[in-house]
Amino acid sequence: MQKRIYLDNNATTMVDPKVKELMEPFFCEHYGNPNSLHKFGTEIHPAISDAFNKLYEGINAQNEDDVIITSCATESNNWVLKGVYFDKIYTGEKNHIITTEVEHPAVGATCRFLETLGVKVTYLPINKEGTISAQQVREAITPKTALVSIMWANNETGLIFPIEEIGAICKEAGILFHTDAVQAIGKIPVDVVKANVDFLSFSAHKFHGPKGIGALYIRKGVELTPLLHGGEHMRGRRSGTLNVPYIIGMGEAMKLASQGLDYEYKVVAKLRDKLEDALLKIDDVFVIGDRAHRVPNTTLISVRGIEGEAMLWDLNKSGIAASTGSACASEDLEANPVMVAIGADKELAHTAIRLSLSRFNTEEEIDYTIDVFKKAIERLRNISSSYRA
Amino acid sequence: MQKRIYLDNNATTMVDPKVKELMEPFFCEHYGNPNSLHKFGTEIHPAISDAFNKLYEGINAQNEDDVIITSCATESNNWVLKGVYFDKIYTGEKNHIITTEVEHPAVGATCRFLETLGVKVTYLPINKEGTISAQQVREAITPKTALVSIMWANNETGLIFPIEEIGAICKEAGILFHTDAVQAIGKIPVDVVKANVDFLSFSAHKFHGPKGIGALYIRKGVELTPLLHGGEHMRGRRSGTLNVPYIIGMGEAMKLASQGLDYEYKVVAKLRDKLEDALLKIDDVFVIGDRAHRVPNTTLISVRGIEGEAMLWDLNKSGIAASTGSACASEDLEANPVMVAIGADKELAHTAIRLSLSRFNTEEEIDYTIDVFKKAIERLRNISSSYRA
Repeated sequence: MQKRIYLDNNATTMVDPKVKELMEPFFCEHYGNPNSLHKFGTEIHPAISDAFNKLYEGINAQNEDDVIITSCATESNNWVLKGVYFDKIYTGEKNHIITTEVEHPAVGATCRFLETLGVKVTYLPINKEGTISAQQVREAITPKTALVSIMWANNETGLIFPIEEIGAICKEAGILFHTDAVQAIGKIPVDVVKANVDFLSFSAHKFHGPKGIGALYIRKGVELTPLLHGGEHMRGRRSGTLNVPYIIGMGEAMKLASQGLDYEYKVVAKLRDKLEDALLKIDDVFVIGDRAHRVPNTTLISVRGIEGEAMLWDLNKSGIAASTGSACASEDLEANPVMVAIGADKELAHTAIRLSLSRFNTEEEIDYTIDVFKKAIERLRNISSSYRA
Repeated sequence: MQKRIYLDNNATTMVDPKVKELMEPFFCEHYGNPNSLHKFGTEIHPAISDAFNKLYEGINAQNEDDVIITSCATESNNWVLKGVYFDKIYTGEKNHIITTEVEHPAVGATCRFLETLGVKVTYLPINKEGTISAQQVREAITPKTALVSIMWANNETGLIFPIEEIGAICKEAGILFHTDAVQAIGKIPVDVVKANVDFLSFSAHKFHGPKGIGALYIRKGVELTPLLHGGEHMRGRRSGTLNVPYIIGMGEAMKLASQGLDYEYKVVAKLRDKLEDALLKIDDVFVIGDRAHRVPNTTLISVRGIEGEAMLWDLNKSGIAASTGSACASEDLEANPVMVAIGADKELAHTAIRLSLSRFNTEEEIDYTIDVFKKAIERLRNISSSYRA
């Protein structure tokens, strides 16, 4: 039987069997609508309430803050940007949003849409270290800035952005601050109080919950025009019948993610480091970004002379799932945008391979991956037209 | 053990065990992101493709039409209304939307939001029969009308609106036509070709699929600004990682719904009729809407002298789940809006009880419900301050 080694956990993750188990009874047994007044509705309330408690705890949300269920972080990100547009920009009060050049398309493409409506958007470039500085944000702020939206950790490199510092700057300037924390939850501690964020997006399927559910944290007292108007679910903030099984699943996934942070640093990071160290011994192999500033599970590796897609193919033939970058853009075989941003030469920018681990990976899998990777480099460099050692 | 009789299928339904079974492997085994290029991604494609085929078949969508997955009909409805706003109204080309007074809040509340942006909205009143006529639509059209949005079947009464006629009028006038078909799918034949619709919303959890997934049908060639911008999923029309298990589940639920239409008319309608006939024998009990014009599963019953909530409570104590109206608004104990619209007196408008059946109900359950209902009427009228026989 062919091996199945999944090293693409920044694209999506396996649902933890414990999460699945907890969701089970809510499909065919306890299937009521929690908004209904009868027993089929009310009997679900304790499980929903329990799930919300886990979500609040996981990000240190305070009692009067809101954690609003959405269908994914893409929805959460669209909601913040378009909501702030209607609240502050359509009204004429403000006209400016600050973000980065390397946000997920859910932020980037939404900003480009808002530009067509006349919004001014500053896309901060990342520096040679692959990150941005809080000082860049400070310098970009104008009296007309409505929102700063900056990811907590980059999906490609795993590099962590200085969210706490940026949060402090935004708070001081009285500007709303949103962070897309999709790649941070379950990998590093995420604390909305320390980070001084007004909005925080996350998605269950990046931390072993189901695909198709996410949330938006909204700080106490912060207004935001709904993206989904309707039946006044979630206190009128986000309408639509509650996805009961997935809410319960996301809560459990958050609990397990929080409990597993130690394991991420102690075990997952070590496996990732072992993999990196082994590959870095090969000539002309590079790893993007300082290890100390990355989430524990991610490595973006560049192998001079080998197109990322060719390497992906060789790995795939051996049962290993990796990525050349974000799965969301995988239909375009383009240069890795983060590599381009950090100034890699054009050829190198086409060679990036992202390996992203999870708590379900084993040392045996990593040893096998190292072996396959080495052989693939040898094979592909031998037939490469561009690489000469 | 207490009886559990679920007669609130217009609020939400049980996931069909066959649907659940088909979703099972896609949580912990085949958990890849279908946008990924490796085997974990590509191995999912046949099941996704199969699900789309079932969805297309279920509504008679044509090959070049789009059926775009959303998180619920609320999202689909918001998308159409806000998308058309950006496409036709923000641009200054048009300024007017036609809808009805009895749409689901996902349409109604969104229209009220659009009014705050300067959009003119005509809310057609329903007539004494509880429906609207195509002629009303024709008369409301102006040269500035951008969109007509009218539900296929009403969630409260089950009354079917003349969608084919309205579709023909909109086509003739060159105006986009949207129908919220949430309460029609699985109950009556829904054919997007015959109905001449440009957009059609539906939600899996109303036809024994999971909660938290729906779709928007978009006729070939019709443009619509996305509600969720991002990673270019679904050909750029709706971004966000695909909810693989639920897409597969919704496809199967659609197949079973289509196959079950005969059963709806032959069995479910008969159970509903038996229930109605038995209750109509009691003095001052009314059923809203001509049976011939209703979907087969729904009855809205009015019992003079008894507040809907009181009746709900008595039924609930006996293990029967019913509703005073839409679960989406169940936190407000207000007069039933459809009852008000059809001109019921104020007292009667507070007495409506909706019973909505499904293919999982049995004759035994209906007999028990008739028995409980009769006793509840007797008990509650005895203590009623307003009712005198």
